[in-house]
Amino acid sequence: MGDVYAVVLAGGSGTRFWPASRKARPKQVMALGPGTDRSLIAETVRRLMPVVGDPGRVLVATGAHLMATTREALPFLPPSSFLGEPVAKNTAPCIGWATRRIAAIDPSAIVIVVPSDQHVADEGAFTRALEAAIASAREGVICTLGIEPTRPETGFGYIEVGEEVTAGVRQVARFVEKPTREKAEAYLASGRFLWNAGMFIYRADAMLAAIESALPELSQALDELDDSEASVRRLFDRAPAVSIDVGVIEKTSPLHVVPANIGWSDLGSWQTAWELGDKDAAGNVVEPSTVTVEAEGNLVRDLSGSGRVIALVGVRDLCVVDTGDALLIMPRECAQDVRRVVAALEAAGRDDLL
Amino acid sequence: MGDVYAVVLAGGSGTRFWPASRKARPKQVMALGPGTDRSLIAETVRRLMPVVGDPGRVLVATGAHLMATTREALPFLPPSSFLGEPVAKNTAPCIGWATRRIAAIDPSAIVIVVPSDQHVADEGAFTRALEAAIASAREGVICTLGIEPTRPETGFGYIEVGEEVTAGVRQVARFVEKPTREKAEAYLASGRFLWNAGMFIYRADAMLAAIESALPELSQALDELDDSEASVRRLFDRAPAVSIDVGVIEKTSPLHVVPANIGWSDLGSWQTAWELGDKDAAGNVVEPSTVTVEAEGNLVRDLSGSGRVIALVGVRDLCVVDTGDALLIMPRECAQDVRRVVAALEAAGRDDLL
Repeated sequence: MGDVYAVVLAGGSGTRFWPASRKARPKQVMALGPGTDRSLIAETVRRLMPVVGDPGRVLVATGAHLMATTREALPFLPPSSFLGEPVAKNTAPCIGWATRRIAAIDPSAIVIVVPSDQHVADEGAFTRALEAAIASAREGVICTLGIEPTRPETGFGYIEVGEEVTAGVRQVARFVEKPTREKAEAYLASGRFLWNAGMFIYRADAMLAAIESALPELSQALDELDDSEASVRRLFDRAPAVSIDVGVIEKTSPLHVVPANIGWSDLGSWQTAWELGDKDAAGNVVEPSTVTVEAEGNLVRDLSGSGRVIALVGVRDLCVVDTGDALLIMPRECAQDVRRVVAALEAAGRDDLL
Repeated sequence: MGDVYAVVLAGGSGTRFWPASRKARPKQVMALGPGTDRSLIAETVRRLMPVVGDPGRVLVATGAHLMATTREALPFLPPSSFLGEPVAKNTAPCIGWATRRIAAIDPSAIVIVVPSDQHVADEGAFTRALEAAIASAREGVICTLGIEPTRPETGFGYIEVGEEVTAGVRQVARFVEKPTREKAEAYLASGRFLWNAGMFIYRADAMLAAIESALPELSQALDELDDSEASVRRLFDRAPAVSIDVGVIEKTSPLHVVPANIGWSDLGSWQTAWELGDKDAAGNVVEPSTVTVEAEGNLVRDLSGSGRVIALVGVRDLCVVDTGDALLIMPRECAQDVRRVVAALEAAGRDDLL
């Protein structure tokens, strides 16, 4: 495994975990996972260690404005691990940049691309799925992990599987965008569709070839990279803002997919945080200092560090998130509406809370 | 009005306004009234000024352990205004003590006894009701204000009215304890019943005579009072723990009552605080920094002094009370259940929050 690298994508700054997540303190640096006080991104790196082996082979791509926060969340990585994107240009440019850098060391190195903000409950299964994908990627075919769906989710893209290639590895028949509810139900029933979790495994030279074929402009900019900051800025100035999925992967053939049943979650909202959390007898996911009286199904996260008492009396299915400078109270089923609070704060000029 | 005194009863330390109210910071020193940041007790004293005239004629009876907090809430009163009860013995002993002290200055002085933790919306009507009661009390009959009921409340005692004495003043037919729902509805329908709000108006010598007749033991202890702390302690050691209502007033005849329509509220729970509060278009009573998204009928009180954002998304009819060291979230209709949180904290040994 001495030639297996990881590229962790940490450019996001979502609003769905407000008030915990902020522009300057995005979801991935928060301890949103169940049963741990480590950040999602630290968990992501730790979880890769069985296959990557050495933290020195982990690259983290993040926005230049998030660099300090991201490095703080990963104190065990050397400074050279961090790639600061001067402007956000979706995932193709930064994956190209990271892959280029790895290829300069070893063109046939294996690269694992993973988002920084997901949760995996079954780490053994995750490791085995990666090992299958790595074996397949060594043959020069770009491989992806496909999550076996558990519900007709309309918020994810899907991968339709084709023929079996080897045990545990299948051809990708096609990628499909976020479906309607009806289609999602049909996908789930068919057993032929997997969730696209944005995890890719490939040989560095195979990806560079795929980029050259699908995005020649990006490829040329990558060729002109040197060690200077100016060349990075030129790359991001010129590069198209496109995802690796749409810009490269979906235009490449063949592709392989490893169906994975790994207890995966995108941790997409406070609702998900409740779903994953350890529940008391009344279905509450709470802090040690929470007091509940006839309260059921609530999520309480106190990120203020105060350890103060939060008393819930007679309430059901609420999310209560306290960050010290802000407090959010909403029904779990409204978890997608958090962005409306963020919009209201934006409109009110409360940049201090965004 | 140079002979009109007030005795403000501030011995209570209720649990119904937790977490705002605490053993050491009871309801009456909190700014729970609508549209003001002054404490209930400061409002109570201010509201009496039109008839009492001089803060120097206000006595405040409170527990010895609440003395400092109570004096802090009333910085405009001289130290001699405060009577510290060495032990809680209900209202008869402290009213007797205060009345005795006033009688030593002027036996025919008028005394107005009021609880420290109520709200009066119509202060003009309150002043007029007190003036009618004072005129009646000057004749030597103990008088009370009776609040015209607006609902079949089962949490208050009632006063049944008898014959009219003079314009605006009636005989008291009888006092009745907290009724059943059925009886409360009958009382409301009859038009002959008023709420007992614990406000009494009398000539000092008339009350001392009533105490002598109804509670001779207390009367004797009052006779033995001198200026020493030891004599106060002896009084409270010997005195029966009984309310002035049950121990004296209800055993005295005749009694007068002034029916009063003064926008009175006992501010008995967070539900009441919401009822009295200024509501936005969606029926929320909130802080300036509150952000609401499809939230209706909620009460938000931030007593932490932080001025931080509290965001309510899609919730209805909640109480949210933040004191910095504790946060309470409950439906308004559960307002009476706050005591169960207090009981849970007591059981958990969290005296710091009680």
